Amino acid sequence: MKILVLNCGSSSIKYKLFDMDRKEVIAQGGIEKIGLKDSFLKFTLPGGEKKVLEKDIPEHTVGVEFILNTLTSPEYGAIKSLDEINAVGHRMVHGGEKFSESVRLTPEVLAAFTACNDLAPLHNPANLKGVNAIAAILPNVPQIGVFDTAFHQTMPKHAYMYAVPYELYEKYGVRRYGFHGTSHRYVSQRVCEFLGVQPEGKKIITCHIGNGGSITAIKDGKCMDTSMGLTPLEGLMMGTRSGDIDAGAVSFIMEKEGLDANGISNLLNKKSGVLGIFGESSDMRDLENAVAAGNPRGILAEQMYFYRIKKYIGAYAAALGGVDIIVFTGGVGENQASARWGACEGLEFMGVKLDAEKNNVRGEEMVISADDSKVKVVVIPTDEELMIASDTMDILKK
Amino acid sequence: MKILVLNCGSSSIKYKLFDMDRKEVIAQGGIEKIGLKDSFLKFTLPGGEKKVLEKDIPEHTVGVEFILNTLTSPEYGAIKSLDEINAVGHRMVHGGEKFSESVRLTPEVLAAFTACNDLAPLHNPANLKGVNAIAAILPNVPQIGVFDTAFHQTMPKHAYMYAVPYELYEKYGVRRYGFHGTSHRYVSQRVCEFLGVQPEGKKIITCHIGNGGSITAIKDGKCMDTSMGLTPLEGLMMGTRSGDIDAGAVSFIMEKEGLDANGISNLLNKKSGVLGIFGESSDMRDLENAVAAGNPRGILAEQMYFYRIKKYIGAYAAALGGVDIIVFTGGVGENQASARWGACEGLEFMGVKLDAEKNNVRGEEMVISADDSKVKVVVIPTDEELMIASDTMDILKK
Repeated sequence: MKILVLNCGSSSIKYKLFDMDRKEVIAQGGIEKIGLKDSFLKFTLPGGEKKVLEKDIPEHTVGVEFILNTLTSPEYGAIKSLDEINAVGHRMVHGGEKFSESVRLTPEVLAAFTACNDLAPLHNPANLKGVNAIAAILPNVPQIGVFDTAFHQTMPKHAYMYAVPYELYEKYGVRRYGFHGTSHRYVSQRVCEFLGVQPEGKKIITCHIGNGGSITAIKDGKCMDTSMGLTPLEGLMMGTRSGDIDAGAVSFIMEKEGLDANGISNLLNKKSGVLGIFGESSDMRDLENAVAAGNPRGILAEQMYFYRIKKYIGAYAAALGGVDIIVFTGGVGENQASARWGACEGLEFMGVKLDAEKNNVRGEEMVISADDSKVKVVVIPTDEELMIASDTMDILKK
Repeated sequence: MKILVLNCGSSSIKYKLFDMDRKEVIAQGGIEKIGLKDSFLKFTLPGGEKKVLEKDIPEHTVGVEFILNTLTSPEYGAIKSLDEINAVGHRMVHGGEKFSESVRLTPEVLAAFTACNDLAPLHNPANLKGVNAIAAILPNVPQIGVFDTAFHQTMPKHAYMYAVPYELYEKYGVRRYGFHGTSHRYVSQRVCEFLGVQPEGKKIITCHIGNGGSITAIKDGKCMDTSMGLTPLEGLMMGTRSGDIDAGAVSFIMEKEGLDANGISNLLNKKSGVLGIFGESSDMRDLENAVAAGNPRGILAEQMYFYRIKKYIGAYAAALGGVDIIVFTGGVGENQASARWGACEGLEFMGVKLDAEKNNVRGEEMVISADDSKVKVVVIPTDEELMIASDTMDILKK
């Protein structure tokens, strides 16, 4: 069975084609700058080499068609005919309160998804464009939606409500939804397989740390709390996002800088986080180099970044009544030993003890806690696309 | 030695007169509705009875004069002459980064304090009015300022900085300051006396929980982190304040409701918190009654209120690398057993175990943890005025 996974942004389409019988990725790549001047398709050849094809791609349907043509091209193709594609799984960003699991994309489902546009005005319409493009080109291929928010729908109400007038929840759906749900779900399931334990009875904290970042508290395999909120701005300090900040500071900055709602949103989403404090870059690798060189603002940014992860681990251990497993994933979580060390240092009181040598791992599954650590700390590289492909296959088989 | 303690708000003045030789309050009361139609002075007679005197009080100097006349009146007076007042200690709200301890109020100090007006535009000018009124009436009496923010000035930079563009800190002082500092300082010192231990080497979390609420992480007697921020809006859910909320939700609500910076600030400070969720009242006693009657929104509000305290305790234990002592104070912290229970339930993994019977205490100093609890949990009624009077005496004696 071959499943195509699509992740459509407003000006980009990423894809992976899975052969699920062999659990292998047989083609992958992405289009960037859709609707812009120099749009292109970049993909990986079987040998690992990257190939770039430039082409004018004014909108998503042209992009999807270009991807499908490349998948079946005599020169670069991984398959001979589009008939080989059994289904398409889509990453869908905001399912609101309507989707607590992956579903087949029927007209009713798409209408319910479209009703969530307000909560993700940039992402949801872009996701929908991808679905419509496939429907136009491959009308008989089933399509499945996998929502970033779905895994978090099990949060109890006292965890997802904000303490604002209740009517704002009723009128506009103002509440915590959380994101990166497919990643948190994948690594929380995978870590149990890896350790040979059942999710039932286990308290797990999953740290998806990258340019964006979120932490999730999981009990019995279900999400109990997560650090991102109504939007992906809340929670950890990120590459360019502030994460948690006094709402009083938000209105204070607006008044001082003469910003409207859009202006402050831009400042907090795009000019803050590591970039705001460090000042030179939002990239953690640049930050690591600056820290090594003794740059004071770099050092401050890194301390803040680690400290906030540590505080969330403590808060979620309290929320769960303890913790059995902590997972690190995402670009930073998988690759940066110093970030894992900084986040876990001082947590011995709750049974967390890293092994400095084991922690020195990059991008592979590994227990990094000491043998006598009560809490298992584990690196699990995330694989959202595989999760989407698996969900798609499961739904097809039903 | 007799010390008058004043707490001047924009339309109120509270006072306590201390006889520091006997460590006793010999007079106390307050003026309300200054500048409004039906202003009055309410004070406590020696027998404990309350007395109300109505009077037109257009501004603070008239109010202070009225208080001083009452203190020396043949009928109600606690002292014979104003000469008996050795000093006046003022509660001052926002000392910015300029004041890390209490100081004598010289012209230079008052200029530095006035420069912080921007950070507390309602409170600081009102505090200053009280100082000026005393200076006008009792020009020879020394005045001392005790700042709400001072205790928190020992926070490390990675705890007090927000992850926003660094220039906002340089230009406007955007950072975490924290409030209730005098209360957190008092109870953290008092709990050590009470338990017969030294603050050095101890990790203490103080929970000041009332209509307003904040939690502070203390190590070696010094503040390491605190939940209120640039403004008193951040952190815990409060009577009418939202506490922590996604900054993305702030701009979302502004756009949906057509609010400007002032409008959203009003909504989050005055219409949110317990009032926003429960809908009927911001008072925890009303909320307890509603919960007892099975009111669903009341139950939700209470669960949210407790849950957020618990998460902060966990976060600060992580920040401190463990915790030895947890203190509850403030109207709710001192009196509501269910709030302490709700906040500590499930924290056994970090050594916290309450004793249900001992926890059934109201408003008195008491260890409420079980004998075998690794962490001591203690109720300490706060006394900010005594702290202000003590600081005032200490500075006079220097």
